[in-house]
Amino acid sequence: MHSYMRTPGTEKQEEMAHYANVVIAHTTEICKWNVIISFCNLNVRPLTCLSFLYSPARAALLTGRLPIRNGFYTTNAHARNAYTPQEIVGGISKEEILLPEILKKRGYVSKIVGKWHLGHREQYLPLERGFDQWFGSPNCHFGPYNTSYRPNIPVYNNSEMIGRYYEEFEIDERTGESNLTQIYLQEGLDFIFQQTLARQPFFLYWAPDATHAPVYASKHFLGKSQRGRYGDAVMELDYSVGQILAWLVTLGIDKNTFVFFTSDNGAALMSGPKQSGSNGPFLCGKETTFEGGMREPAIAWWPGHIPAGTVSYQLGSVMDLFTTSLTLAGLAAPFDRVIDGLDLTPSLFNNSMTDRPIFYYRGNQMMAVRVGPYKAHYWTWSNSWEEFNKGINFCPGQEVTGVTTHTQQEHTMQPLIIHLGRDPGEKYPISVLSKEYQTVLSRVTLIVEEHQKTLVPGQPQLNMCDLAVMNWAPPGCERLGKCLKPPQSQPWKCDWPH
Amino acid sequence: MHSYMRTPGTEKQEEMAHYANVVIAHTTEICKWNVIISFCNLNVRPLTCLSFLYSPARAALLTGRLPIRNGFYTTNAHARNAYTPQEIVGGISKEEILLPEILKKRGYVSKIVGKWHLGHREQYLPLERGFDQWFGSPNCHFGPYNTSYRPNIPVYNNSEMIGRYYEEFEIDERTGESNLTQIYLQEGLDFIFQQTLARQPFFLYWAPDATHAPVYASKHFLGKSQRGRYGDAVMELDYSVGQILAWLVTLGIDKNTFVFFTSDNGAALMSGPKQSGSNGPFLCGKETTFEGGMREPAIAWWPGHIPAGTVSYQLGSVMDLFTTSLTLAGLAAPFDRVIDGLDLTPSLFNNSMTDRPIFYYRGNQMMAVRVGPYKAHYWTWSNSWEEFNKGINFCPGQEVTGVTTHTQQEHTMQPLIIHLGRDPGEKYPISVLSKEYQTVLSRVTLIVEEHQKTLVPGQPQLNMCDLAVMNWAPPGCERLGKCLKPPQSQPWKCDWPH
Repeated sequence: MHSYMRTPGTEKQEEMAHYANVVIAHTTEICKWNVIISFCNLNVRPLTCLSFLYSPARAALLTGRLPIRNGFYTTNAHARNAYTPQEIVGGISKEEILLPEILKKRGYVSKIVGKWHLGHREQYLPLERGFDQWFGSPNCHFGPYNTSYRPNIPVYNNSEMIGRYYEEFEIDERTGESNLTQIYLQEGLDFIFQQTLARQPFFLYWAPDATHAPVYASKHFLGKSQRGRYGDAVMELDYSVGQILAWLVTLGIDKNTFVFFTSDNGAALMSGPKQSGSNGPFLCGKETTFEGGMREPAIAWWPGHIPAGTVSYQLGSVMDLFTTSLTLAGLAAPFDRVIDGLDLTPSLFNNSMTDRPIFYYRGNQMMAVRVGPYKAHYWTWSNSWEEFNKGINFCPGQEVTGVTTHTQQEHTMQPLIIHLGRDPGEKYPISVLSKEYQTVLSRVTLIVEEHQKTLVPGQPQLNMCDLAVMNWAPPGCERLGKCLKPPQSQPWKCDWPH
Repeated sequence: MHSYMRTPGTEKQEEMAHYANVVIAHTTEICKWNVIISFCNLNVRPLTCLSFLYSPARAALLTGRLPIRNGFYTTNAHARNAYTPQEIVGGISKEEILLPEILKKRGYVSKIVGKWHLGHREQYLPLERGFDQWFGSPNCHFGPYNTSYRPNIPVYNNSEMIGRYYEEFEIDERTGESNLTQIYLQEGLDFIFQQTLARQPFFLYWAPDATHAPVYASKHFLGKSQRGRYGDAVMELDYSVGQILAWLVTLGIDKNTFVFFTSDNGAALMSGPKQSGSNGPFLCGKETTFEGGMREPAIAWWPGHIPAGTVSYQLGSVMDLFTTSLTLAGLAAPFDRVIDGLDLTPSLFNNSMTDRPIFYYRGNQMMAVRVGPYKAHYWTWSNSWEEFNKGINFCPGQEVTGVTTHTQQEHTMQPLIIHLGRDPGEKYPISVLSKEYQTVLSRVTLIVEEHQKTLVPGQPQLNMCDLAVMNWAPPGCERLGKCLKPPQSQPWKCDWPH
């Protein structure tokens, strides 16, 4: 299909001077352990990166701002996770400035391959928000659906749909076979090739849908890992990132291309045992503000610029990719708003360290804050007893009394403080009677007060749902004869159970 | 003190042909995560290695045999862990053949540096059991003791004590400062240097006491890690192994020296939060037969022989170090007894795989068996309710119903079967109604029946205790004026609570 994969050009392209291409590979719920192992002999610097939850993580990455600022949260109930299922009415606000919009000023061509997740209605789609190209889908690959009640998710090529998951883009629920990651890989490689030929600096936001449940892999990878279907998917992802790196080398643009690999949240332990990764030593998983939900492996690659095989202890965040990418392109971040993202280039190039707090939110509630090696929990919650009793468990096999609480537990007068160095599993809150507690609390209190004093929450975008807004008739459906008839509009306040 | 450390010889020694030196660095309770990261750019092959518990692990390493065969277990109560505190009467049986005894046939000079733990009475000490040299102690560095009731543990140089822990060999309980790892490092480097000068093939069994609680580090490392005192100790251990490798390179014998690094059991979670490591995704810790207690990181190093940076999926065991070392020395294992250790050289050199079962014992009870990616639990037990209610917890923050049981739970008629690939945390036993369960059970049953049919348990060595046998007056004490008066002999059946 893409013959350049079989006959790579042997002539090395001249280096494209001045510009640093940017490739951000941003996936979901990868197995922390496997990936670090797989990559540890490349020219990479692994570091710790904090993320948010699915859609809010993606909004944070592209705006450089906390979801509470950019509006990617809900206020429907206290401390609820929200995202963009296809009944969501909202999307990323027009008020927000996205990374590709700014990169355009310096001639960057931007493409997103894979999952968008920032609103599927027309005004929210990638090409409306600064991307020049898109191949992928607006929502997650859940399904298949009975299309009289719920449409399957469309796959777009730029601004028109070209098919739907479980229809033209097959995912075999029974065997777990799907070529999706291969398709996304080829789209990424193709884009890199075209931009290299055109000598255009580029930004590739490679956002494959793997390893999110329902977990899939292509035929070649199915059954190949020792970690079940989930492991097969990780293996294919690993292979694919490897292909992207190798392709950059083949095209001679490796020394001009900054590549960053990370995830949007910790492993979804509630998908276990067959569809979930592992959060290693960290507590709980996706949907929580414990480290298992928020901490991600992150790998930076740039031969000649980033020293190989070193480990950074810098506390990063997906928001930093916004600021860092702008720095690499010689651009400034917007001055008219708060930007939370940090420029990571000093850490990446010189392994220097910047002390910075990170705030962990669930909905509009600040649940915890990280300051240096300490984390202070102001609220704890895994999920409700009601959900838990139905078998939905975000912390399977784990129970830390007073920490993994099934009621929303307030600790604002006396936060639980953890030293994440000594206690990465968040099992042993520091005694409130200790001198250490008092010292840390004073420092954290100042930081939290400053944060809360200056915080101006954005307009919440994830409050309203409506079956009429689902992907019934996306642009391009007529040409394919794949338009479905939407029901009458009946908006309601979305129910976010956890 | 050791001036060669400051002025390393610049002339490369000629290669010592024919022989492969062997260095086994065998420590306790290391943090799995840190070490793998630290080592991943060296010329190493990490693999999975199963171990046993402290003393039985060491007995297994040096005999190549399961503790149930070599006698390093107890029958005082059902399924109890036993080791060699200083009131133990027994030690490694004279019937057993130890690795250095066989290596001697090929002219190897063997030294143990650090913890012996195979019996502290004179007839059991290293120089009685094939080692040519010893610098270290017979027991763990617990203390300090009120020496009218209990002597501090002696440190030996060969067959005579030269001081005691907390006396001549300082460990500051309050600050955690101790030079022990540095002392053991220097002893190791010194031995390597002397053997290189003498052109003698050597076996160094470098068994530092770190990172066992009470955790210590030398001044230079204290406070240096981001992981508290435990992290400081890991850092010093990492540094020390690095020094050993660098020294082999400096002396020009790196291409003649096989180095293997592993541990005797998983992190001792009950020492948490300040004195314990993390078992990452694995269940529970030391004292249990869950993976957190038994699975170890293991790293093999041999430039020019072991391909750098690869990962082996071979299931190893500490017993394999016996067989593998003999193969490297061109020697055969004893024919007159069952040897459980596997020759790992095909895995190390060619990354080939051998399917082999591993039996997990607690005392004389086979608790579980590992066959391929499957583990079948025939008995489960964390520890008794009585201990647990006193705050002794081998699985802090973890609770898997029906798995981490506080009563000794028998499953022999219907073992709990886990797929460790899909479920590394042992949280989801496979449904007994599934086809997979039935297929695996048939296979496992045959293997277990064969094992049990042919098993001849060794005479248990860890049943009797006596305060009179403690380290009151070790050889050499007279010269130091450090002999203490033993009480009257009153042997009793040791109480092994878990």
